[in-house]
Amino acid sequence: MSTVIALETSDVRFPTSSQLDGSDAMNLDPDYSAAYVRVVTDADDGVEGHGFVFTIGRGNDVQVAAIRALEHHVVGKNAEELLADMGATWRSFVWDSQLRWLGPEKGVMHMAIGAVVNALWDLKAKRAGMPLWQLLARMSPEEIVALIDFRYLTDALTPEDALQILRDAEPGRAEREAQLLAGGYPAYTTTPGWLGYSDEKLVRLAKEAVADGFSMIKLKVGGDLEDDIRRMRLAREAVGPDILIGTDANQRWGVDEAIAWMKQLEPFGVAWIEEPTSPDDILAHAAIARGVAPIPVATGEHVQNRIVFKQMLQAGSMSVLQIDATRVAGVNENIAILLLAAKFGVPVCPHAGGVGLCEAVQHLSMFDFIAVSGTTEGRRIEFVDHLHEHFVTPTDVREGAYWPPATPGAGTEMLAASRSEFEYTETQAAERLHV
Amino acid sequence: MSTVIALETSDVRFPTSSQLDGSDAMNLDPDYSAAYVRVVTDADDGVEGHGFVFTIGRGNDVQVAAIRALEHHVVGKNAEELLADMGATWRSFVWDSQLRWLGPEKGVMHMAIGAVVNALWDLKAKRAGMPLWQLLARMSPEEIVALIDFRYLTDALTPEDALQILRDAEPGRAEREAQLLAGGYPAYTTTPGWLGYSDEKLVRLAKEAVADGFSMIKLKVGGDLEDDIRRMRLAREAVGPDILIGTDANQRWGVDEAIAWMKQLEPFGVAWIEEPTSPDDILAHAAIARGVAPIPVATGEHVQNRIVFKQMLQAGSMSVLQIDATRVAGVNENIAILLLAAKFGVPVCPHAGGVGLCEAVQHLSMFDFIAVSGTTEGRRIEFVDHLHEHFVTPTDVREGAYWPPATPGAGTEMLAASRSEFEYTETQAAERLHV
Repeated sequence: MSTVIALETSDVRFPTSSQLDGSDAMNLDPDYSAAYVRVVTDADDGVEGHGFVFTIGRGNDVQVAAIRALEHHVVGKNAEELLADMGATWRSFVWDSQLRWLGPEKGVMHMAIGAVVNALWDLKAKRAGMPLWQLLARMSPEEIVALIDFRYLTDALTPEDALQILRDAEPGRAEREAQLLAGGYPAYTTTPGWLGYSDEKLVRLAKEAVADGFSMIKLKVGGDLEDDIRRMRLAREAVGPDILIGTDANQRWGVDEAIAWMKQLEPFGVAWIEEPTSPDDILAHAAIARGVAPIPVATGEHVQNRIVFKQMLQAGSMSVLQIDATRVAGVNENIAILLLAAKFGVPVCPHAGGVGLCEAVQHLSMFDFIAVSGTTEGRRIEFVDHLHEHFVTPTDVREGAYWPPATPGAGTEMLAASRSEFEYTETQAAERLHV
Repeated sequence: MSTVIALETSDVRFPTSSQLDGSDAMNLDPDYSAAYVRVVTDADDGVEGHGFVFTIGRGNDVQVAAIRALEHHVVGKNAEELLADMGATWRSFVWDSQLRWLGPEKGVMHMAIGAVVNALWDLKAKRAGMPLWQLLARMSPEEIVALIDFRYLTDALTPEDALQILRDAEPGRAEREAQLLAGGYPAYTTTPGWLGYSDEKLVRLAKEAVADGFSMIKLKVGGDLEDDIRRMRLAREAVGPDILIGTDANQRWGVDEAIAWMKQLEPFGVAWIEEPTSPDDILAHAAIARGVAPIPVATGEHVQNRIVFKQMLQAGSMSVLQIDATRVAGVNENIAILLLAAKFGVPVCPHAGGVGLCEAVQHLSMFDFIAVSGTTEGRRIEFVDHLHEHFVTPTDVREGAYWPPATPGAGTEMLAASRSEFEYTETQAAERLHV
């Protein structure tokens, strides 16, 4: 028996804005950051659970404060009990009646819950001696269904529906696990396409992406139409006709603008248009999807919870669903979203990049392949080649694929040296203001 | 010329949970709280702008941290410039590209923006020597339209639409201001209906409400169906056939449950069903609205922003729209929502109660009557008789009406003595844990 004795937080910020890595039409100067949490127990194995919320700089301290507000749900509790019933543990966070007022189930407080939930999954997987994808993919359909809160979902997905999806996938699990280990999981790359890069850098990186084995790249759009047309032409010339090119507007447009803009880019061959408008706008996404067809609409990295995803699927707002490892309330909620996607037959192509998002989200796609959707058809995990060196188990991306991690845990543990070097202190804050 | 020299915050919590005031099916033991902010300038008039976010206890500190994260947008700035173009000021907060990641436009960070925006409006109104309702109601249609960010709204409301609504209402402004001063603005009361109250207390308070001149009361429902049926019967017997009785489920249900439950309460005469399900669920609200008709669906106190309100109006999810003074990004965004409601012909009945919500939101309804919708037909502001004594300008509610405040400002200033007495410190936190 062990007890959780601390929820240790830290404010980690990488000064990425100096390179314009990660620049797009809405996020001009991100400093990729993590509101980081460690779940520490008194067990003598020294094993800790690590999790984080990804942010882009300012406000990372607010996110840290929100994680601290969850302390009473974890510290002093029996660790085995918390980990044994992760469905109940999840509900204890999300249904805290006072904290719930701060959302409900959205924004800072919901993401904080996600960090703690993910840290507990990291602890659970480490204790089980398995990478998270494998731990999840070996749970029974009943155990998986018990992780999910079906309130507000049953008009689209009932527990019985979920159980059926999982049972249908059960016979092929072992075969698909072997396939995954032998062939990896498909990836695509956003590295070439940031708005802040020059045309020369775009072309060079696009060619490198193809040489590296990627079958899809993605370009940020939505800043200036003439620029976008030129960049799309350059990218298409660089990669040739057979490589997919996705586009990402990062919420820039209203309905009419989105449709008109994409008509101009369509001739270059567009794999999808991502985040054409507000992530809250289910009906506008549906109108855009009708207006830009046959270009698929992709969205999800800023979709606040399973309830909005459910409606987007009901309304036909998206034909590609993009989960994010740290936007919703962690692994449990993302499993609910994977099951919703499976029910509606929509492929899941996770958002990643940032700090540690690749490391974390790959586990969910691999679990999905083995135990939920049973396919990688039309599915790719985003890959951005930034900041992986700071993680204990950095992604292994080669030949256009993510190769499944073998290390126990959820992939969310950052190196202690990196956490320490990039910890954001009052002194650093003052220094950055005066640079 | 004056400069903003400080954004002072405080964590104010009233221990209301000891009385079960404010208890409902989701909020079992709220401690009504305010994450409070003062905008201080170096002007020698000593006038400050005050604002707050209402919370129900835990997490109030997170909300305070979020307000502090906005300091760089205000402190050191020219106060006259900030106040002269409140549209630009609003956008500087909401479009902060790094902070935006924490929402966007929802939850803790968005509510923090609301507190600061409202504090600036308080300062602006005090400097103008007018109560906020009057300041707003005397702005030109063009000035009002300039307060609003139309991004994500134009598929339902264009600047031209907004201008037309405001211009149509302009000729009657003076007459309606006189009407308001002579007759007040209609109110309804939730005081009798909290779930934690005994049947005897419910009946006594319901009769008192009628005696006090209210034409509508509201009951919390959704805990237990048999209890709700008994309480509805008791309430109807107590108030007679002519008084409206609203019901409020505080997000308890899914679609089918909401419809089935309300069929059981319908025979007692239901003025509306409020928050039947998740505030994020536009499509479920629409399905419930169809299923419970002719009972109207009311919602909004937890609706995160104007984009979700827009969709609820487009989808027919609500026939009563309930704005809240501190849920969205302040006065500017609530004006956008009032204009959307006017465009769709849906009456606005604000959510209030809590700490200072009555004091704040009445200004918006009074402005709406004079300059936007031009009517109080089907409209009432919620009234709960709690904690008004802590405000510099407490509401004046008599004869079932809110009487327009004459004091300059937005109504959001809490007495210094109350802020000091109920400031939540580490010591108090420890004491409450050990009671």
